[in-house]
Amino acid sequence: MHTPASKVSGYVVLMIVQIVFLVLFWLFVRYDKSALPARLDNEDAGSAEEHVSKYPQFQDIQVMIFIGFGFLMTFLRKYGYSATGYTLFMAALVVQWSVLMKGFLHMEGGKISLSLESIIDADIAAAVPLISMGALLGRTTPIQLLCMSIVEVALFAANEYLALNILSICDCGGSITVHAFGAYFGLAVAMMLRPSSDQNEAGKHEGANYTSDIFAMIGTTFLWVYWPSFNSVLAAGTGGERAILNTFLSLAAATVTSFVVSALVSHENKLDMVHVQNSTLAGGVAVGTVCNLLLGAHGAVLIGIIAGTISVLGYRYLTPWLTNNLRLHDTCGVHNLHGMPALISAIASAIYASLVTVDSYQSELQDIFPAMVDNNGTTTKIMGGLGRNASSQAGYQLFGIALTLIIATGGGILTGAALKYASFRNLKKDEQHQDEQYWEVPALESKEE
Amino acid sequence: MHTPASKVSGYVVLMIVQIVFLVLFWLFVRYDKSALPARLDNEDAGSAEEHVSKYPQFQDIQVMIFIGFGFLMTFLRKYGYSATGYTLFMAALVVQWSVLMKGFLHMEGGKISLSLESIIDADIAAAVPLISMGALLGRTTPIQLLCMSIVEVALFAANEYLALNILSICDCGGSITVHAFGAYFGLAVAMMLRPSSDQNEAGKHEGANYTSDIFAMIGTTFLWVYWPSFNSVLAAGTGGERAILNTFLSLAAATVTSFVVSALVSHENKLDMVHVQNSTLAGGVAVGTVCNLLLGAHGAVLIGIIAGTISVLGYRYLTPWLTNNLRLHDTCGVHNLHGMPALISAIASAIYASLVTVDSYQSELQDIFPAMVDNNGTTTKIMGGLGRNASSQAGYQLFGIALTLIIATGGGILTGAALKYASFRNLKKDEQHQDEQYWEVPALESKEE
Amino acid sequence: MHTPASKVSGYVVLMIVQIVFLVLFWLFVRYDKSALPARLDNEDAGSAEEHVSKYPQFQDIQVMIFIGFGFLMTFLRKYGYSATGYTLFMAALVVQWSVLMKGFLHMEGGKISLSLESIIDADIAAAVPLISMGALLGRTTPIQLLCMSIVEVALFAANEYLALNILSICDCGGSITVHAFGAYFGLAVAMMLRPSSDQNEAGKHEGANYTSDIFAMIGTTFLWVYWPSFNSVLAAGTGGERAILNTFLSLAAATVTSFVVSALVSHENKLDMVHVQNSTLAGGVAVGTVCNLLLGAHGAVLIGIIAGTISVLGYRYLTPWLTNNLRLHDTCGVHNLHGMPALISAIASAIYASLVTVDSYQSELQDIFPAMVDNNGTTTKIMGGLGRNASSQAGYQLFGIALTLIIATGGGILTGAALKYASFRNLKKDEQHQDEQYWEVPALESKEE
Repeated sequence: MHTPASKVSGYVVLMIVQIVFLVLFWLFVRYDKSALPARLDNEDAGSAEEHVSKYPQFQDIQVMIFIGFGFLMTFLRKYGYSATGYTLFMAALVVQWSVLMKGFLHMEGGKISLSLESIIDADIAAAVPLISMGALLGRTTPIQLLCMSIVEVALFAANEYLALNILSICDCGGSITVHAFGAYFGLAVAMMLRPSSDQNEAGKHEGANYTSDIFAMIGTTFLWVYWPSFNSVLAAGTGGERAILNTFLSLAAATVTSFVVSALVSHENKLDMVHVQNSTLAGGVAVGTVCNLLLGAHGAVLIGIIAGTISVLGYRYLTPWLTNNLRLHDTCGVHNLHGMPALISAIASAIYASLVTVDSYQSELQDIFPAMVDNNGTTTKIMGGLGRNASSQAGYQLFGIALTLIIATGGGILTGAALKYASFRNLKKDEQHQDEQYWEVPALESKEE
Repeated sequence: MHTPASKVSGYVVLMIVQIVFLVLFWLFVRYDKSALPARLDNEDAGSAEEHVSKYPQFQDIQVMIFIGFGFLMTFLRKYGYSATGYTLFMAALVVQWSVLMKGFLHMEGGKISLSLESIIDADIAAAVPLISMGALLGRTTPIQLLCMSIVEVALFAANEYLALNILSICDCGGSITVHAFGAYFGLAVAMMLRPSSDQNEAGKHEGANYTSDIFAMIGTTFLWVYWPSFNSVLAAGTGGERAILNTFLSLAAATVTSFVVSALVSHENKLDMVHVQNSTLAGGVAVGTVCNLLLGAHGAVLIGIIAGTISVLGYRYLTPWLTNNLRLHDTCGVHNLHGMPALISAIASAIYASLVTVDSYQSELQDIFPAMVDNNGTTTKIMGGLGRNASSQAGYQLFGIALTLIIATGGGILTGAALKYASFRNLKKDEQHQDEQYWEVPALESKEE
Repeated sequence: MHTPASKVSGYVVLMIVQIVFLVLFWLFVRYDKSALPARLDNEDAGSAEEHVSKYPQFQDIQVMIFIGFGFLMTFLRKYGYSATGYTLFMAALVVQWSVLMKGFLHMEGGKISLSLESIIDADIAAAVPLISMGALLGRTTPIQLLCMSIVEVALFAANEYLALNILSICDCGGSITVHAFGAYFGLAVAMMLRPSSDQNEAGKHEGANYTSDIFAMIGTTFLWVYWPSFNSVLAAGTGGERAILNTFLSLAAATVTSFVVSALVSHENKLDMVHVQNSTLAGGVAVGTVCNLLLGAHGAVLIGIIAGTISVLGYRYLTPWLTNNLRLHDTCGVHNLHGMPALISAIASAIYASLVTVDSYQSELQDIFPAMVDNNGTTTKIMGGLGRNASSQAGYQLFGIALTLIIATGGGILTGAALKYASFRNLKKDEQHQDEQYWEVPALESKEE
């Protein structure tokens, strides 16, 4: 039974978290040099200009996080306030936490440096718990979601540091560190919160209506159009343009493929909005890790075709199987949009890494695969040291995804256990997939019309 | 009683205004040098490139004005055509008028210079009557709204000139000159158009339904994600990056706070969409005037926490009080989203101005607080002359907001009086908050389904 | 009668097309030098940076194509899945096809060069069949639409090459080559697919409801705000800034005019959402061809006023006449939004071309009107040779639009004939303007609520 007291204490905890953030910002965070006025005696300004050259991409990513994820999840017919509202709530909390968490991992002189790069990273970090939220959509309270996101982002920052800085894998668009992590963490939490076997049927509100499906297309389409910015924002040199081109082509091919496969495998060969809203985007995930590599247009298109196909087949066959046999409910099918396409991307990264030569990457080898270059004299913590050959790098790529799966799944199991057994309130079957438990809903007025 | 004749004459007047604009453009407006081909004998082009470097921010602001404001106001369940349509109509009229008005204040050789900067200023000016429209939403005819906007923008341009050029206050994100002006002008008009005391209850269509609330979230979210562009577009030097960072953090903190406070003060501790749609944005307003200053991350977060709290409390307690006691109806609660947060911003600007030192702002002091520098030899009309100290600048900041409140309120009272008593048609109680009086609405078809 | 077999074979054909694209990409397409790592022995990188300076405009155009067109067409109350879904499907197919088609026309050494420019061109090409889709909305199967788009884009690429490279006309914003082509091609197809005279009345689902009209406003507004990017993206030098300014002012003037004329000519002087959704954009089309010329603000505003007026009058009087007398159904009224305004733009281009002097365009004459300059020694295929005078250029502008109309209309007639008489399934009257034939629609759930 719902008691107001439980809600109040949950929200009060979140307010305390916000105030702790304030204190940590005060103690540890300082503007980066690029955001400070040039000294009067040394007028070499202009660094700021350069520093904010990624601002347009940042703004695209802002739209993806807040509009893209938020509206993609409005497809449930009675859960639109929660989809858009919790996205805003969670992202606003996580971006602050990310500035602090990632800052602590890269402190200089005991201070965290704040610049445009910090908030680009923060927006990318916000994607992680939002992906997990997709797996859980409608089955948790907002308090559970927000608390999950705090734990998850801390683990994400640690895993990312491990994968990129210690293992030195390439993951330009974040398919390994962001998409795979978010998806499998969320699925592990969903597994822990799975219903008892007598409550395993779909909830009565767990479905779309005509209007909610069109709202969801707003999310899909903005994710689609801005995905090249997400994948390219951290690319250096000409890799940025390749990331844009490869992502664009992979998305286009995945989209055509998703429509065709959706029609071919669906009832009466009708198109299914679930596939259109989600699988069309699988091309962006599947090309993520390798988006700045020399795939060629055909490489990008091939990855898109594979991703679109597997994603639609996942929605059609795998998700129902998981629900029926493991009681694993994945409301948005994040396994099909983020999980499997990210695995494809990791495998592709091992294949392409095994083909790398100095001759092909020339001056950019050091940026893209720093562990394959050995002539810089800096000491480094990179695992296995520098001067890897191509097949060794390929092995590390696979190591990176394996480690990510282990940390994400393990972290998700522990977090899910805490959410289920600690003093959190859990939603009952008939409270799921509807806003009314946690929102003022204008039910009467809308009926009366 | 509605007579077609009154509508026709109103629209005809607006057409005449458009034609007058055409003539004024022809007589007075010329392309800026940056938009003219370089002379063949002097190939120093490239200035154009530099000139349009703010184009991405301009486009973000376009989205805020047309999508952001337009959809934020669709929350009324029968007023969506008007919300999106009048926003488009009003903004299209105002941007032209602003190019002319602000141009007349900065003419050179009897001509107005047209450049990207002109239309950035024009979009910012369009925000002013759109804020006022929020206070009046559903209670006026489109003719009244449009005529109001013409008067208001002229006064806004004058007040802005006074505050920035004569008083030389800092107001990077426009919280004083744009938000406070628009809010208090609109509230003054609303006060003049207040209903008689026997008609003071809420209109029968004055509320949201499930779908209209989600449409409104489109507006909220786009305003949220692009607000850093609005606040930073006019910042110079490294102040641009600080404006981005401070605005982002203030919004994030205001959002977390708004959700928490909304739940804590609402009925049954349920979240209220009105707060989520509006108070989450209060952080952007409250940080506006000071967004390019050296607030530090903690300063921005603190401002966001204060703004989110005050905004939700305003919606919960102050707005109903104003409605019941003063018959002041503020349909969108612009006092809570724009008015009070702008006052917070003005007060913050006085505090931060009082702390300014040459040592902290170095080479940027002249850009940000030009009246605090005295070593430039140009003659100037700045009130009180140059070489202010920090506490003097703080005083001018407060003078600036006070003057803005007086001009906005006075102008609003006079404009409201004109709208009420001149030959304008006024809506009757049961004509309010619904599109049908001024729009062809497909009522029958939608019923028949 | 619907047979699943026909659907299956249609979708299979589209999958084969996608695989053919894959092969063609593999055989012919290579990254442009700008997207390849700089050689180690020659570190002159940085070209990439410059190359992607149009990336923000590209992203704006992405939004216009996928969100803008997609949502503009959601106004039909039972066709929202199709509007947003087919837009995504068609654009994803066409962008790949355009990279290939336009690439074949500009091959170097037997290879197509892939760069950001390629995908900017691809997005622009996607607009062409989407405009045609507007004319046919609800009257075709998706298979017909997709097959049409493949033929149409090939013809578009040929016509564009003819107009820009052989005739050497100016068409910066593509009103001639994109808007006129797409509109008249679509109208010609619609003419071929026109119903028999006993079925000429409007379909029972051919209309908006309250919610679908507001969804359509999302499309309208995003097209509006980003139109300056569409028109300016291919402009060189200071023409880019002029294109932005002229497009902005023309849209603003067309919007004010559309509202006024809509009210004046409508039933009971009420505003009509069809006009607001469409005619407000006519200013962007009408200024397209001439947007980078020295129109002056008054020139842009005048073009906007004319376009808004003609567009609304077209919706009010011409479209019904065409439907009743020619059985030409133009579901979205593309003739009023794209067709007639593009003709205005072509005429304006002849007028402005006739006034061109070296003295006014200086160093940019060669970029804008290359055929009017004769002192470059390169051999050229330009029709009539170089060194045209102003009135000759004006004549070529008119020749360009005439040729476009002939190719578009002729191509449309042949394509329409193929769609009608070849083995394509055609929709029956009562299958039109509704998603259910080709989409899983959650009809029951939405009823049960």
